[in-house]
Order: sequence, then C-alpha cells, then structure tokens
Amino acid sequence: MSGESAFIDLLRAMATDPAARGLQDDAAVLDVGDAKLVLTSDTLVEGVHFLAHDPADSIGWKLAAVNLSDLAAKGAKPRACLMNYALSGDSDWDAAFLSGLQAALERFGMPLIGGDTVAMPGGAPRSFTLTAIGVATTQYVPSRAGAKAGDVLYVTGPVGDSGAGLSLLQSGKDEPAALVEAYRRPQPRVSEGHALAPHVTAMMDVSDGLLIDADRIAKASGLCVTIDHIPLSDAFISLRGREARLDAATSGDDYELLFAAPEGASLPVPAIPVGRLSSGEGLRLLLDGQPVPLPSRMGYQHHR
Amino acid sequence: MSGESAFIDLLRAMATDPAARGLQDDAAVLDVGDAKLVLTSDTLVEGVHFLAHDPADSIGWKLAAVNLSDLAAKGAKPRACLMNYALSGDSDWDAAFLSGLQAALERFGMPLIGGDTVAMPGGAPRSFTLTAIGVATTQYVPSRAGAKAGDVLYVTGPVGDSGAGLSLLQSGKDEPAALVEAYRRPQPRVSEGHALAPHVTAMMDVSDGLLIDADRIAKASGLCVTIDHIPLSDAFISLRGREARLDAATSGDDYELLFAAPEGASLPVPAIPVGRLSSGEGLRLLLDGQPVPLPSRMGYQHHR
Repeated sequence: MSGESAFIDLLRAMATDPAARGLQDDAAVLDVGDAKLVLTSDTLVEGVHFLAHDPADSIGWKLAAVNLSDLAAKGAKPRACLMNYALSGDSDWDAAFLSGLQAALERFGMPLIGGDTVAMPGGAPRSFTLTAIGVATTQYVPSRAGAKAGDVLYVTGPVGDSGAGLSLLQSGKDEPAALVEAYRRPQPRVSEGHALAPHVTAMMDVSDGLLIDADRIAKASGLCVTIDHIPLSDAFISLRGREARLDAATSGDDYELLFAAPEGASLPVPAIPVGRLSSGEGLRLLLDGQPVPLPSRMGYQHHR
Repeated sequence: MSGESAFIDLLRAMATDPAARGLQDDAAVLDVGDAKLVLTSDTLVEGVHFLAHDPADSIGWKLAAVNLSDLAAKGAKPRACLMNYALSGDSDWDAAFLSGLQAALERFGMPLIGGDTVAMPGGAPRSFTLTAIGVATTQYVPSRAGAKAGDVLYVTGPVGDSGAGLSLLQSGKDEPAALVEAYRRPQPRVSEGHALAPHVTAMMDVSDGLLIDADRIAKASGLCVTIDHIPLSDAFISLRGREARLDAATSGDDYELLFAAPEGASLPVPAIPVGRLSSGEGLRLLLDGQPVPLPSRMGYQHHR
C-alpha cells in the first residue's frame, strides 16, 4: 500500500523527538520528571481489524489487549488509558463493548481516565481508539533494535492460533473454541514482559506474524535472523496439522512476545527458542534442518 | 441524544479513578512519579466536526488546536502527542493535513511521538484522533469545579467569531477572512492558561458556547452564574451587529479560556469580565441591565 508507506515516511520526518523512537517501535518512551512513560495508541476499524459480526464484548477486550500488548513488549506496567469511541447507534452493542473493555482493564489494572465519544454519520464503519499509558520498569526500555549476533530469538508461546480462529470464523465455523478464543480474546503478556525486560536485548509483540516480526527485529538490530522452529499449539496441530506451520508463522494477532537474549541466559518465564541472530542481513528459514523458501506473504503487512 | 448520554453514564461508572475527574473535566490529571500529567484526547469526524470541503491543512491545525486548548484550560505545558490517522485515500490531502498539523505542533511545542495509521473501508468519513500529553504547572490543576460565590467570570477574548465563520462557509461565502480564519485556525490559549492557572478558582475552554460552558462551571461548582456581558469582535459586529450577540454566546469552537477569579484579583493577561458566580443554582442572563430569557439552544450539545 504505497500511499500508506508514503504517509508513514512523512510522519517519520515529523517525528524527530527521541521519544518517538523514529516511529519504528511498538511504543513511544517519554521522560517526564523522574518518570519514564511508555505510550501507545491503536485504532481498530470494523472490516479491517475485526469482523462486523464479532461479539461486541470481544472487540472491547481486543481494543484493550492490543494496546496492553504494546506496553508488555516494552516491559511497562499499565497505568491508565483514554478511549475514543464512535457510537454504533445500538446501545446494547455499545454496552456489551464496554463490558469486554472493562474486563480487560480490570484484569490488567489499567483504569480508564478519559477520551472522547463521537456520533459518526450513518453507515460509517465502527472504529475505536485506545491510548495506553504505561510506566517503564527498567532504565533501558527494550526496543526492536539491540539484539546481538549470537543471541537466541524466543517467543513466549505458540503462534498461529488467532489466525486459525479467524479462518474458522470466516468459513462460518466456531470450533475448536480455543482457536476462536485466541482470535477474539488475545491475552497480552503483561507480567511476562515486565519479568523479561531486564533480560532481553530486543523485544516486541507478535502482532503481524512471527516471520515478519522476526525480520523487523533483525533489520532494526542490523543482523540476520534464522528461524528454525515454529511452535504450534495442540489445538492448531489437531485442526491443521504440522504442515500448516508456515500459515501459523505468517498470520497475525498472536500477541506473544518475541525477544532476543544471549545464549544460555536464565529466563524468568517459560519461552520457546525459535531461531538465532547472526551477523549479516535478511531472514532465513530452516525447518527440520532443511532450508525452506520464504513464503510470498510474510505476514500482515500494515504499517504503524 | 439519549443513546450518547446513556453511554457516557456507563463510562462514568467505569472511570472511578481520581485521575479521570469523573470524566467531567477537559482533561485527566494523572500523577506518575513526581510528575503531574494532563491528558486529553479529541476525535474530529468529517461532517460532524468539520466540513467535507474545509482545507486539509486547516483540519490538521484544528486537530492539534482543540487538544492544545484542553491543555491550556488546565494551565498545562504541552509535552508530546500521539495521532491516530485514517488515511483519506488522497495522498495530497493527507500531506496537506500533516502540514497544518505540523504548523500547530511547532507553534506550540508539542512533538508528535506516536500513534497509528489505518486504511478505512471506502466511503467512510474521515476521522482523526489526537491524544495530547501535558505537564501541569501548578500543584492544584484548575478544574470546572472550584469557583466561589462572589467570583467574577472572565473570558480571554470575544466569542462567536468561529460560529460566524462556519455560518459564512455554510452559505457559500468566505469573507470576512477574520471570521473564517477563527473557525478554521482556532488559536489555543496555551500561554494564557499557563499564566492564569495560579490565579483562577475554576477554568475551562469555550468549546461548546459561552452560555453552556458558563453553566458547566456553575453546576460543577454548585453555584449560580449570571452572564451580563457577551464580548464581540469588531469583525463580528460589522457583519452581524450587536443584536446577534446571543448567537455568539451559543455557537461553539471559540477556544477562548473561561475562568473564575476572586473580584479584584490581579490577572497576568488581559481578560474580559462576562459575569459573576453567586450562591444558588442555574444560569441567568442580564443584558444592558435587563433580564433576558435564555435561548432554547444553549450551545453545541455534545458530551465528552
């Protein structure tokens, strides 16, 4: 989408403040007084980020979760949020949305403190924005850059469940429930991110797909990455089989954390090694010990 | 709009953190470390908050200005902002929008540090959100509550120019330029708000109209307000005459500051007395010394 790329280039030319991190990271990092704030804002649009018939409460949950996941990727503790809500014209739908939002905000301790409510013209797609404010828990806030040659790349859980859940819904099915749930109620890894932050050399969340996001860490760190394992859940394997693993590595919305750490580092939470960083550039895929050509579609190609 | 009111009630029931100020103020006030943050987020929607044919750069300017005005009303110093942008599908339009935004951000020293860019489905109205982060400059951050009986109510400049400018544009005219400019390029009173904050008992910006906003200060403070003067610009008087002053007091988008201060207080910036707070409740209008019935439409009735 070249119009979007050109626009992002214009934004990056504007966003020269160091807090912006070149608009290349999951969140901004802003020093205010003795506090180091981590700030992120994501918009969800009907027909783009969720299906028109997804349950309203799941969309409220997801709006919070995608922003919480960005805070998690920086090891930040959630502090507060603001929401900008376009009224749907259906008060039951709006109330259900809020119940899902509230469940996520209570679960992760991020109170709603402000925002805006607007009535959209009739027929406009639903769209919602949430801005999350977190507080950094480490002096150095992990970025996508910073991985070193020799580091191991890890992920905090299997990938592909959410993409498989979306595919099920798109084909009119809603079982197995675990996969649908992974799509509808992603679990941001907030406590894991907090625990991992002091141990990682680079960290982000897997929002667009394991391969494309691994490539982003490698590029930002000036390195090459080799992916040699794609972790799958039992539910995914039962439905799709191991041979669908490339689908799992190129679908988005996983919201696991992807991070690099020195080989042999003692990690505070369970994590699955998926590859290694080395000098050079690019992404290589090695499955069952054999080089595998990269898929033509590497992940969900949107820009932040 | 009862659906919107009911929704706001649900939001208020959720937003119990003191930082939210009950969702009754222009901004949230959040303590983080030794910093006191002032946070606000406003969304502008085509056909609701701006005209489809307004110049793109003026909409970028206005998106920044309306948020800066909320910071100004709390006496806060702008620190940074995040923008959520729905691509218009017209890259020239998008670039012009950014140039207007950038002009406002540079003028008021509020760097862009993050946000999100989304492609909307075809035919969707343009909509844009900006979240502004400011730093309080006073230990007590002015709210709408806090005015005392006997306080004088002031405004930092004339009202009605923006509403007159909008009316001109809606009837196909674009002169006098000063009025159109007031609508298209509102000037947030950032330095005035900063200077006034230590001197006021209550403060807000006039975004929905002088009468309705004065009534909000009175209600929040548990007082009655009598408005006895509606300040008009020369441009407004030349076009509409003094007899249109009720229109001026009920149109929105002025973005002057409205504040209460003790009688005889020495104020650091020029301000025009428009009325007085007293014990009791309600809004009274007294023009040329005579009681005047309240207009049926008190201002732009939207909720935050």
